[in-house]
Amino acid sequence: MIKAGIVGGTGYTGVELLRLLVAHKDVELSVITSRSEAGQAVSSLYPNLRGHVDINFSEPDIDSLAKCDVVFFATPNGTAMKMVPQLLEAGAKVIDLAADFRIKDTATWKQWYGMDHACPDILEEAVYGMPELNREAIKQARIIANPGCYPTAVSLGYIPLIENNLIDDAHLIADAKSGVSGAGRGASVATLLCEATESVKAYGVDGHRHLPEIRQVLGGVAGHDVGLTFVPHLMPMIRGIEATLYGVLKTDVDDLHQIYAERYKDEPFVDVLPLGSVPETRSVKGSNMCRISVFRPQGGDTVVVSSVIDNLVKGAAGQAVHNMNLMFGLDEKTGISQVALLP
Amino acid sequence: MIKAGIVGGTGYTGVELLRLLVAHKDVELSVITSRSEAGQAVSSLYPNLRGHVDINFSEPDIDSLAKCDVVFFATPNGTAMKMVPQLLEAGAKVIDLAADFRIKDTATWKQWYGMDHACPDILEEAVYGMPELNREAIKQARIIANPGCYPTAVSLGYIPLIENNLIDDAHLIADAKSGVSGAGRGASVATLLCEATESVKAYGVDGHRHLPEIRQVLGGVAGHDVGLTFVPHLMPMIRGIEATLYGVLKTDVDDLHQIYAERYKDEPFVDVLPLGSVPETRSVKGSNMCRISVFRPQGGDTVVVSSVIDNLVKGAAGQAVHNMNLMFGLDEKTGISQVALLP
Amino acid sequence: MIKAGIVGGTGYTGVELLRLLVAHKDVELSVITSRSEAGQAVSSLYPNLRGHVDINFSEPDIDSLAKCDVVFFATPNGTAMKMVPQLLEAGAKVIDLAADFRIKDTATWKQWYGMDHACPDILEEAVYGMPELNREAIKQARIIANPGCYPTAVSLGYIPLIENNLIDDAHLIADAKSGVSGAGRGASVATLLCEATESVKAYGVDGHRHLPEIRQVLGGVAGHDVGLTFVPHLMPMIRGIEATLYGVLKTDVDDLHQIYAERYKDEPFVDVLPLGSVPETRSVKGSNMCRISVFRPQGGDTVVVSSVIDNLVKGAAGQAVHNMNLMFGLDEKTGISQVALLP
Amino acid sequence: MIKAGIVGGTGYTGVELLRLLVAHKDVELSVITSRSEAGQAVSSLYPNLRGHVDINFSEPDIDSLAKCDVVFFATPNGTAMKMVPQLLEAGAKVIDLAADFRIKDTATWKQWYGMDHACPDILEEAVYGMPELNREAIKQARIIANPGCYPTAVSLGYIPLIENNLIDDAHLIADAKSGVSGAGRGASVATLLCEATESVKAYGVDGHRHLPEIRQVLGGVAGHDVGLTFVPHLMPMIRGIEATLYGVLKTDVDDLHQIYAERYKDEPFVDVLPLGSVPETRSVKGSNMCRISVFRPQGGDTVVVSSVIDNLVKGAAGQAVHNMNLMFGLDEKTGISQVALLP
Repeated sequence: MIKAGIVGGTGYTGVELLRLLVAHKDVELSVITSRSEAGQAVSSLYPNLRGHVDINFSEPDIDSLAKCDVVFFATPNGTAMKMVPQLLEAGAKVIDLAADFRIKDTATWKQWYGMDHACPDILEEAVYGMPELNREAIKQARIIANPGCYPTAVSLGYIPLIENNLIDDAHLIADAKSGVSGAGRGASVATLLCEATESVKAYGVDGHRHLPEIRQVLGGVAGHDVGLTFVPHLMPMIRGIEATLYGVLKTDVDDLHQIYAERYKDEPFVDVLPLGSVPETRSVKGSNMCRISVFRPQGGDTVVVSSVIDNLVKGAAGQAVHNMNLMFGLDEKTGISQVALLP
Repeated sequence: MIKAGIVGGTGYTGVELLRLLVAHKDVELSVITSRSEAGQAVSSLYPNLRGHVDINFSEPDIDSLAKCDVVFFATPNGTAMKMVPQLLEAGAKVIDLAADFRIKDTATWKQWYGMDHACPDILEEAVYGMPELNREAIKQARIIANPGCYPTAVSLGYIPLIENNLIDDAHLIADAKSGVSGAGRGASVATLLCEATESVKAYGVDGHRHLPEIRQVLGGVAGHDVGLTFVPHLMPMIRGIEATLYGVLKTDVDDLHQIYAERYKDEPFVDVLPLGSVPETRSVKGSNMCRISVFRPQGGDTVVVSSVIDNLVKGAAGQAVHNMNLMFGLDEKTGISQVALLP
Repeated sequence: MIKAGIVGGTGYTGVELLRLLVAHKDVELSVITSRSEAGQAVSSLYPNLRGHVDINFSEPDIDSLAKCDVVFFATPNGTAMKMVPQLLEAGAKVIDLAADFRIKDTATWKQWYGMDHACPDILEEAVYGMPELNREAIKQARIIANPGCYPTAVSLGYIPLIENNLIDDAHLIADAKSGVSGAGRGASVATLLCEATESVKAYGVDGHRHLPEIRQVLGGVAGHDVGLTFVPHLMPMIRGIEATLYGVLKTDVDDLHQIYAERYKDEPFVDVLPLGSVPETRSVKGSNMCRISVFRPQGGDTVVVSSVIDNLVKGAAGQAVHNMNLMFGLDEKTGISQVALLP
Repeated sequence: MIKAGIVGGTGYTGVELLRLLVAHKDVELSVITSRSEAGQAVSSLYPNLRGHVDINFSEPDIDSLAKCDVVFFATPNGTAMKMVPQLLEAGAKVIDLAADFRIKDTATWKQWYGMDHACPDILEEAVYGMPELNREAIKQARIIANPGCYPTAVSLGYIPLIENNLIDDAHLIADAKSGVSGAGRGASVATLLCEATESVKAYGVDGHRHLPEIRQVLGGVAGHDVGLTFVPHLMPMIRGIEATLYGVLKTDVDDLHQIYAERYKDEPFVDVLPLGSVPETRSVKGSNMCRISVFRPQGGDTVVVSSVIDNLVKGAAGQAVHNMNLMFGLDEKTGISQVALLP
C-alpha cells in the first residue's frame, strides 16, 4: 500500500482527493493536514465522507508527512514550494496541485504570482503532470506540477492542431467557461449562490494566471511562442469546464476528426466524440475524462474545438491520482475510472 | 458472474442502474431493452457511459431476458407485471423498480394506479425490498418490489418511532422535498428548466401514489393502520429527497437520538447523524446512504425527523442493487459504497 | 414628493428597496447610508441600478436622515433601536425592516436576540406592519416593525383558520422553505453557490428567531398562546418562500376555500388561488403578492395550506413600501404592483 | 390608448410581452390568440398575471386582430408571413418577433428556414427593428422585423468596431452563451431541468439560424460581406445572453472605450460600462438594457468585447415594445425602463 498524505485537505480539491483516494485499492491515507481545522474529524467537515474516512485533520508537520510515500499539496499558491525540499530530501514523492511548480520561468512566475520562487532548482526538476504530453517523464519524477484546470481543458483541445502545425498559432482564441468550484471554498461575496447563480460573466479578461501556463504548454508543443487570447467565464453551476477553442487553418486538411481520433486513440482519459457530437460538461461530472469535438463550420478556414472536463477531477484531483499511478507503476486507470454522475 | 438484464433502460433509473452495474465486480450486463431506442448504442444516449458500456439497446424479448440470472425492470408502472410470470418460470430472479408489486391490496392498487393487477399470486409472493425491514425475506426472494423513493426516505425516518410505539400514529405528517429527476426523463413542460428552476411548490396534495405505499409500510410496522398526511414538494435541483417528519409523543422519552442510533447501528446504509447535526441532500448525492437526524424542539412533545436520500440511488437503483446483493449471497455493500459527490 | 432615506443600503433588502423606490412616483430618494461603502456610487455596487440611481452611499448621519420624511432601516438587528428615538423626535417616520421592534415582550426579545432593548417605550408604540392585520394602526403609526419573511408567509396562511377558531392551535406545524437570499449578502461558506445549490436541508430546527414572532402574531389573532413547531429549510434558489402549514380541524367545515376567499377578498396583495391549484414561488418572483391555497386531503381532518411570497418583496422591501403608502395616505398599491418575472 | 393584439401568446416571448404591456400606460390589450389554449384564461396559464390580465386566449382571427392598432407576432417561424398582408391592408401595424421578416434575401431565408417566403414584397418593406441602427426608419415603418436575441447582443457589441473600420472583419469570432428560455416553452427532453442544469455545452456549431442574420446586420454596417464564426452555448439558467466577441485590430487605436462610450452616449438602452468592469447577465435580468465592455488584453492587437442582454427583453419583447414606442411617437422609454431584478 502506498502511504499518502494531503496538505491542505479542506478545500474542494482536498475533498475531491479524499473521495478518490479512499476508494483507491492501493492507497492508504496516512495524514491530512489543515491549519484551521486541526483536531477536527475530516467527516465533520465533509459529511459525504462519514463512514469512509475516520481520521482527523492534523497540524502541518514535516516529520509525519516525510513518512509518506507520496504527499499531495492542495494548498494556496506559495505553500508547497516552502515544504517540498525537505520532503524530497526525506524520500517522499510530491504532487503539487497548486501553481508553485507549473511556470518554468521564475520571472514569469513572479510577475503573475507576485512572489519570488523559493526553490528554483526543484522547479527545474519538476515535471508538468499532463500524462498525454509527458507520460514517460512523469513515471520517473519525484516532483510533479499538477496542471491547472483551464490549461488542461485548453491544451488537450489544441494539441493535435499545434503538433501538426495546422493553424496560425499567433492568434489563438480560447473562450473558457467554468463552474464556481474553480474559485474554491473560501467565503466571498462573489461566489455566493445569490451572486453567481442565474448569471454569466467573463472575468480576468485583462489577464488570468492560467494564461502564461497555457502559453508555456502550447509553446512547448509548437517549438516557439504562441499568441493566445484567453477569456474565462463564470458559469452558474458547481463543476465543469467547457473550453471553446478557435484557430484559422494555415493549410487544407482532409479530416480533422481523424487527426484527433488518432492522436488520442491510446489515451484512457481523452475521448474524441463521434463526428457532429458536442460534449456536455455533465458527461464528465465526477469523472476523470476529457471529451473533445472538432468542427470546421461551413467548411471554412476556421476550426472550432470544444473540450470538456470536470475541473475538480481531470482538472485537479483525478489528474493528480493519474500522475501518482504513473509514478508508482500502477495501472494508470486505478481508482479513477468512475462513470460520470448523470443526470 | 451474475448475468443481469435491464428492461427499460432509457430513463433516469435505468442509466443509474447502468452506472452502478458496470462498476459491480460480480455482475455482467447481458441485455438492456428499450422499445424506443432498440438498435442504438447505450452510450449514444448516455455519453457518460462511453467507454464503460458497449452494448446496444434491444427490443424487449422474453427469451433473451430469461437467460439472465436477474432482471431489473425500470419501466413505467404496469409493464413488469405482464412479463414477470414468464421470467420467474424460466428461473430468473426479478427486481421491479416500478410500483407493480409494491401494494399488497389489489383494490388499493387499482384505486391508485388505475388498472387491474395482472398477477395477484405473484404480487402476494413479492417481497418489499427494504433491507432495513425485510433483510431475511429478501435473501430468499425470487421477486422484489423495490420501494418508492419517498417511501424509502419517510419510512426509514419513522420506523424507530413507530416500532417503539412512541408517537400518536393517527396524525403523522410527512413534508417531503424531491429533486426533479423523480419525475423522470419524459418531455414535459412542467419539468423544463425554465419552469422548475428557481421555484418551489407543493404538488399532489390531494393524494400522491406513494401515500398508500407509505401507509402500508408504517401500518405493517405499527401492527395497525396509521393516519398520514403526506405532502411532496418539487425542488429546483436534480437529485435528492429530504423528508421532514412530524409526530406528537405519546410518552416521555429520555434519549431519542439513542433510540435511532441503536436501531440502525448495524445498517450499512443508514447513518444517524450526531446530535444537533442536520442532514443535507448533497451529503448523499450519488451514494446509497440515508442520513437521519432526530430533534425535539424546545423539549416539547413534538418530534421532528429529517431524513435524506438520493432518490435515484437509495430511492431506486442503489437499493435495487442492495437487494440483488442480498438475493445472491454477496457482501451487501458490493458496488454501492461510493462516496457522495460533494460539492 | 416623500423624501426617503435608507440606512444600510448594501444588503439584499436594501437593493430591493432601491429597486422599488426609484420607480415609485411619489418618492424622492435623499440619503442612502452604508458604513462600509461610504463615498461609493450606489450603482458601482449594484450595476442593475446604473442609470436609475446616481447618488453615493454616505456615512450614517442622524442630521441628514432627520430631514427625511421617512427612514427605512435595512440594517443588522440592534442598529435601528439606537437611532430611532432621535429620528422620531425630529419628525421623521420610521420603517424598520430588521427585528428591533417586532417582539413586544422585552424578555423574549433578549432571549432570542441576545441583547437588551434600547428603547422599550418606542417598542411599545411600534405597530407591527402587516397590513392584512393592522391596516388602520399602520396609517396612524410613526414607527413600523416590518414583519419577518417567514412570519409573513406563515401568518397569512394561518390567519383565516385561527380567526375562525377552526383548528387545534396547540399543535400547529409550519414547514417552510426559503431561497438563499434570506441569509443576506454577507460572505459565508454556507451560502456559497457550491455549498447551497443542488441541495436541500432543514436548519434552525431547535429554534429559529422567527418562531417567537410567528407565535406572537398567531397568539394575538387567537387571543391566547398557540403551540407551533416551525422548521425552516434552505432551498437551492435565490428568492421565494413556500410555507406548508398543517392543522387538525376541531370542527367540521363546509367550505374552507370560501373562508379564505372571503377573508382576503379586499386585500390587494393576497391572492387565494382557485380550488385545486397549488402556488409556485416563481409566480411571485419580484412581486409583492402572497398566493395561498388550502386543501383537506382525502376529506380528512387535517388541513394543509400552501402560502408563497417573494421573501425580498412581500417578505421585506415590498411590504415596507406598502406600509409607507399607508402611512402617507397614498393609494396602497403605488409602486408595488409589478408583475412577477416568469420565467 | 393603443389597442394591441398578440398572436401566439403562450410562449415565453408572449408572456414577457404581456408582462410589459399590462404595465404600459399607453397600451390597452385587446386580443391574445392561441390555437392550443383558446378559451382559457391567460392567468390560468401564467399565474404571475393573476390580477393583471383578465382576458382569455382566443382563436387566431384576422377580423379581431385587424381592429388593433398594433399586432405582435410571438409565433413559430412561418406563421406571421401568412397573416401580415391582411393586417397591413386593414391598417394595423405589425411587429414580428419571429424570423419571418429578418432575412432580406429570400434564397438565404429558404436555405436556413426551409420554406419559401410567402410575401417577398412585404419582406422588402419590413424594417429591421434595431433602434440603435434604424431609429428613423422604425418611426415610419408599418412592419417591423424584431431582431433575434443573439443578433442583438452580438451586433450591438461589434457595431462601434465595424462602423469605424477598426478590425479585420473577415475573421470575426462570436462566442455566445444563452439561458435556456431561448429554446422556448415546448416540451423537449433537451431542455428539461435534469438535462440542462449543472452543465454547459456548445450547440449549432455547424450553423445556427442567427448566423446569416448577424452577417446581414454587420455586413450592412461594414458595407461589404463579413466573415463570422458564431458558436452559441447553452447555459444552466433561465434568462440572459452573454456574447464575447473577438477581433484583430487592423490599425492602432488610442481609446477603444471612448469610441464605445461615444457611439452609445444617446442610446437609452445601451450602457457602456466603466473601463475595467465586466458585465454580468444578472445586471439586466428583466430589463431592456444591453451592457457592454471592451478590452484589449495585455495591450495586444486583439479586441475582446463582452455584451449582455436579457434574451426575453432586449432580445425579444422589450425591443418589440421599444419599436412600438417609436412607431407610435411615444417617449421611447415608456414601459420598458424597469430596474433589473438583482439578486
